[in-house]
Amino acid sequence: ATVALGQTDGSEKRKTDKTRQDRLYFDTYSDVTIHEEMLADHVRTNAYRMAIAKNTELIRDRVVLDVGAGTGVLSIFCAQAGARRVFAVEACSIAEQAANIVRQNAMEDRVEVIRGTVETVDLPERVDVIVSEWMGYALLHESMLNSVLYARDRWLKPGGVILPSRAELYISPICDPLVEDRLHFWYSVKDQYGVDMSCMWDFARKCIKNSDIAVSSVCVEDVLSHPARFAELDLNTVTVEQLRTVSGPFTCAAFGSAAVNAFCVYFTVTFPCPDKPLVLSTSPFKPETHWKQAVMYLDAPLEVVQDTPVTGEVRMFPSEDSDRHICVRVDFSVGDSKRQSKTFSIRDWNSDTGTTDP
Amino acid sequence: ATVALGQTDGSEKRKTDKTRQDRLYFDTYSDVTIHEEMLADHVRTNAYRMAIAKNTELIRDRVVLDVGAGTGVLSIFCAQAGARRVFAVEACSIAEQAANIVRQNAMEDRVEVIRGTVETVDLPERVDVIVSEWMGYALLHESMLNSVLYARDRWLKPGGVILPSRAELYISPICDPLVEDRLHFWYSVKDQYGVDMSCMWDFARKCIKNSDIAVSSVCVEDVLSHPARFAELDLNTVTVEQLRTVSGPFTCAAFGSAAVNAFCVYFTVTFPCPDKPLVLSTSPFKPETHWKQAVMYLDAPLEVVQDTPVTGEVRMFPSEDSDRHICVRVDFSVGDSKRQSKTFSIRDWNSDTGTTDP
Repeated sequence: ATVALGQTDGSEKRKTDKTRQDRLYFDTYSDVTIHEEMLADHVRTNAYRMAIAKNTELIRDRVVLDVGAGTGVLSIFCAQAGARRVFAVEACSIAEQAANIVRQNAMEDRVEVIRGTVETVDLPERVDVIVSEWMGYALLHESMLNSVLYARDRWLKPGGVILPSRAELYISPICDPLVEDRLHFWYSVKDQYGVDMSCMWDFARKCIKNSDIAVSSVCVEDVLSHPARFAELDLNTVTVEQLRTVSGPFTCAAFGSAAVNAFCVYFTVTFPCPDKPLVLSTSPFKPETHWKQAVMYLDAPLEVVQDTPVTGEVRMFPSEDSDRHICVRVDFSVGDSKRQSKTFSIRDWNSDTGTTDP
Repeated sequence: ATVALGQTDGSEKRKTDKTRQDRLYFDTYSDVTIHEEMLADHVRTNAYRMAIAKNTELIRDRVVLDVGAGTGVLSIFCAQAGARRVFAVEACSIAEQAANIVRQNAMEDRVEVIRGTVETVDLPERVDVIVSEWMGYALLHESMLNSVLYARDRWLKPGGVILPSRAELYISPICDPLVEDRLHFWYSVKDQYGVDMSCMWDFARKCIKNSDIAVSSVCVEDVLSHPARFAELDLNTVTVEQLRTVSGPFTCAAFGSAAVNAFCVYFTVTFPCPDKPLVLSTSPFKPETHWKQAVMYLDAPLEVVQDTPVTGEVRMFPSEDSDRHICVRVDFSVGDSKRQSKTFSIRDWNSDTGTTDP
């Protein structure tokens, strides 16, 4: 008998104190694996590298702030693009590694690694450009964008540039055959072992089609409509207050006959460029990124045929357990089925289990 | 920027209170996924099914106790083998599902699902046979074996049978090329993005070759010697006291020239059978099971050539954080290199994060 590693059923949630949330949040980045994964994501890293290179005109001889610099790769890209001075602000202990990397690339004269949160550090001057890779799962998981907006309002000169400058959120109905296969497993036990376990089906459905947001790669062939954009954020103007709820309506038309058993949410961010804007997309129709897509399972599949309308509204807001964790409420109706609603969140083991009384 | 889901760097450990540990431990089994994984493990489930069928003589008209019954599959196998009465003892809420499954298979007259820990339940009579699938990662992770021994001493009739009745632990030096590839990644960043990150190598090594036991499938070609058995447990006689430390020496001879960068530990359990004993093996040389193997990385690789002796001792003992979590201390020397020692444990997210002060 084996316990699933690193899991509990999350039955006991409670608001964990803010400080500890932050500590857990920043600690996570101390491990090398996540930085390896982000750098090895060529779609992500090359998009930033290209966007920075294409904006050499804006960056040369200017001052740049990198919010959440991590290993400092974006700061060094900016220095390579001719920045006079780059502030690489990083709250996690990985900042020490960033400083080593800056030295190894002989850029300590231009790139200053500053350990701390952007809300607390004091910069010697305001900046012309803010660059940040702040996007989390489902775009807003972790809400690191709040820190970018704080930096914008506190440190960006009037008319300064934010890279990227726009984010868009999309939703699409999908059919994930794997979960249906998993549910069917309980009907197959009798043939495999001579024990009828079909009565497990409903329990399994409740466990598998729960309210957790799954981060997984959706196959193109499982997407049941053209994705619909339900929200857009202009980083030059959006406020922290507006981020408390990011929502919008959507309308999709089914490609053909299928059973909708989930919604998939993904995002794009756009970099302004002299010629044409550069888009970093996490669409299932584009090359895979480490963000994959956010998948949310319906309690029961809904049949569609060609052009069946799938309409509704998506609301994204912070969970009660942690400001950094996002909840996604989807109100939807398929064809003329009655309007349904389900609220999802990314399972947060930390606050699930960070609730013991000593 | 994405935080690794369900992870912290575990920098803050503290002994979590026993009750909560048990709650987390038993809660985990309430989720369907782990039961699906265990049942879908045909090596595991068919070994029990066959062992029980071959022991029909011992089981027919007898009383059986199933310790940690889960979905009750082993209890039903025993009833199918003619058991007069089966006590299916299960502490988790999955016991409710087991009761449904027993009813669905029309065995409620022979199989009694009893929710509770075997240490606390009161059975109406002693039993002739104890069956249990108690094995965790690295055999002893979770130390569910203690409950089987308690059941043996409290409820098994003299001369009664335990299925399985023996467990053996093996170790082998291996070369895992994947971790070396991961470390090399930091040298490849310059070619990929024009930023030299080779100074990350040592930090990455410390993070990746840490003291966590990795549960992963070792490829046959990565195993560098015949596995050596370092411990054997006779379930008829072993005591809880003896389980506090399971240890033994090992001697391996390298197959050929390679770099040892890890040890792999796995186990077998043996069922007595009228004809010849039936062995359930989790060896990398045998078909994969959901237990895979326990992999422990050395701080630095050690070169071997054909017949280089790899010798030492393995000690397994409960971690200070939780009796259910195992530590593995490996003392070893390769060829005439000086004796080294490293202690490993399976990362326990629950107690890693179950340490907040409200």
